Amino acid sequence: MRFSHRVDISEPNPIALAERAMRARGATPIALNDSNPTHHGLAPHMLPEPYAADPRGQRYAREALAAYLGGVSAGDIYLLSSTSQAYAWLMKLLCDAGDAVLAPKPGYPLIESIARLECVEPRFYQLRFDGSWTIDTAQIEQLLRDDTGHRIRALIVINPNNPTGSYVKPGEREQLVALCRAYDVAIIADEVFFDYALEPFEGNRRFSGERGVLTFALDGFSKTLAAPHAKVGWIRVSGPGDDVREATWRLDVIADDFLPMSELVARAVPPMLATAPDQLQRVRARTQGNLRRLHELLRADALGVVDVLRAEGGWNVLLRFPSVIDENELVLSLMEHAGASGQPGYFFDMPSNGYLALSLLAEPERFASNVRLVLGAVARALDVSD
Amino acid sequence: MRFSHRVDISEPNPIALAERAMRARGATPIALNDSNPTHHGLAPHMLPEPYAADPRGQRYAREALAAYLGGVSAGDIYLLSSTSQAYAWLMKLLCDAGDAVLAPKPGYPLIESIARLECVEPRFYQLRFDGSWTIDTAQIEQLLRDDTGHRIRALIVINPNNPTGSYVKPGEREQLVALCRAYDVAIIADEVFFDYALEPFEGNRRFSGERGVLTFALDGFSKTLAAPHAKVGWIRVSGPGDDVREATWRLDVIADDFLPMSELVARAVPPMLATAPDQLQRVRARTQGNLRRLHELLRADALGVVDVLRAEGGWNVLLRFPSVIDENELVLSLMEHAGASGQPGYFFDMPSNGYLALSLLAEPERFASNVRLVLGAVARALDVSD
Ligand SMILES: Cc1ncc(COP(=O)(O)O)c(C=O)c1O
Ligand SMILES: Cc1ncc(COP(=O)(O)O)c(C=O)c1O
Repeated sequence: MRFSHRVDISEPNPIALAERAMRARGATPIALNDSNPTHHGLAPHMLPEPYAADPRGQRYAREALAAYLGGVSAGDIYLLSSTSQAYAWLMKLLCDAGDAVLAPKPGYPLIESIARLECVEPRFYQLRFDGSWTIDTAQIEQLLRDDTGHRIRALIVINPNNPTGSYVKPGEREQLVALCRAYDVAIIADEVFFDYALEPFEGNRRFSGERGVLTFALDGFSKTLAAPHAKVGWIRVSGPGDDVREATWRLDVIADDFLPMSELVARAVPPMLATAPDQLQRVRARTQGNLRRLHELLRADALGVVDVLRAEGGWNVLLRFPSVIDENELVLSLMEHAGASGQPGYFFDMPSNGYLALSLLAEPERFASNVRLVLGAVARALDVSD
Repeated sequence: MRFSHRVDISEPNPIALAERAMRARGATPIALNDSNPTHHGLAPHMLPEPYAADPRGQRYAREALAAYLGGVSAGDIYLLSSTSQAYAWLMKLLCDAGDAVLAPKPGYPLIESIARLECVEPRFYQLRFDGSWTIDTAQIEQLLRDDTGHRIRALIVINPNNPTGSYVKPGEREQLVALCRAYDVAIIADEVFFDYALEPFEGNRRFSGERGVLTFALDGFSKTLAAPHAKVGWIRVSGPGDDVREATWRLDVIADDFLPMSELVARAVPPMLATAPDQLQRVRARTQGNLRRLHELLRADALGVVDVLRAEGGWNVLLRFPSVIDENELVLSLMEHAGASGQPGYFFDMPSNGYLALSLLAEPERFASNVRLVLGAVARALDVSD
């Protein structure tokens, strides 16, 4: 696997080597330069413990997380403060300025913005809809084949994707892993919505733990615990042993420069994880209940010109309305008449006009009212409103 | 002031504009796509409040901080999780790939590492010692004049610097501000050690709040509260009004992509700030007491070949020993004989051999013992030990 030149992995100096040797013998050097006040009885009362910075995040928090996830080693996890930060670190790890990542379209708009901040070029592959969403793996292969300068360093998959709600299918996954291996490209798998299936499915699996190619799986409390304000995210690294060793060695340098996990947050990780099963259940009940309600409301609609794209997972669905209605105009009319705003398909680079994202999280009465607002606005736009 | 092209400040779309107009009228749009679970009664019990993301960090925490700092507006502050993160964001704000920042030598080694991660070239200006440390402002002027491609986008000052302990003097400050204004370069002022004067001084001031040129002042709980594990840092923006408006507009985009401040941390900011005066006092008593002890121990040393460079502020001092002793050999001998490690001058790019950094934080007995270890190792190296 190829890595960037941004990470300083120069040979350790003789002093660092001697320290390492001393630690390997089980001894701890006295550090004459130790400027960590918590080692000298000076920590504040609200955070009294001596603090030993760990680039991957507090060990006890990673162990609690590994136990929650199951079948994961705490050593393969990096705790950080969001998937945004995870994307940024991984772009630094893999890409020099001007290198590229492949990302899905429609997809998560923040990826493009973060890539730009990291001097990385986002290139896009298409998800296509024909009753359900599929990944255009032939297009990915073409993009990789045409990349004769080897600028593409990672393939980003969102599993399930937002806002399409589509999981990566077993056949697609196999092809993607094979392609990435063949072209020496890492996989970054954003699986924050994985646990939120909207219909029973078979065979879908997380990329997390994939061994066929160097894989970074992202997840966090934003969705698992419905707690975006906790600012807890993580990366799980897996793949061929040599690649994982090389990647984690370099990622440790990046993590050491930033050490984002506050002790105040780390402490909360184990008790918050204990509530995850309940939280998942509460949110699933909400999204699944609202989706049923949506189908009822659409079926009951006299006009019958709005439908919903099949969503397999996640927190959002895409409503489809007649494409003679301009997306901007529909939303602006919603704002004018009902004070309601929304994100039309072009926000996510949908290939054509006529889509509106709808969150499944709203409380049931609010949700039903939101759906009625959209149906009313569509009727008005077609000039068939009462 | 020139800014990078990394930040997407494209025109807002018509929907965003309509939302803005609605908010300006005091109304809140219903967001059909609102995927923030805390807005829908789904927040976990440990973090029950509805969460409204603010790019600059939670308002109540910024207000507590502004009140603590005095004479500062909460609107000029960005809360984030470390000065490392602040450096990274500001490099993204100011520098395209291949642009440069000026940083002091000797100085804080992490700046070089972070610059590399951000595709930014660190260039160095010298601090010179002749009884006390001065900034080579003539060299800075030369570097700016020679920069015909206008790649230098920021001047980093560390006030007081680490490990030299030197404050930026009023005359230097005036020259630096004038140079930065003349060459259209922003100032990044790392003032984490500002409150830790080691001797009475007159006329030294923080860059924080400087109006003559666009200035980003960095500080945080790592030093103010002796709490590196709290992971609380901040940027205060000041300068000419137009530059501040342009900078904050762009910095808001960066901050919005990362939103690093956990509610669990923000909540702790006000009560922790209440303990800051005590913490400062405790740590100052330690560093000042240890510095007095150091002078006594050096005066009492029979050999009398080790002295300490005059330090004006901070948590570290530089010991100077005869330059016939190799720095690496001295530290390796300390490790072998006493299990004690340290950072010699070349770690900080000191211009010559013969320096060792010593932390003033250690508990008094430990501190005295550390000093004796160094004196013993120097005696051994000169082969005059008993
Ligand atoms: C695909 C995807 N990944 C990640 C996130 C957010 O994760 P975090 O809050 O950890 O940055 C979102 C939020 O909407 C998302 O849609
Ligand atoms: C000059 C300087 N700035 C900043 C820091 C660290 O600040 P933070 O923990 O907020 O990244 C240090 C720590 O040693 C330092 O020496």
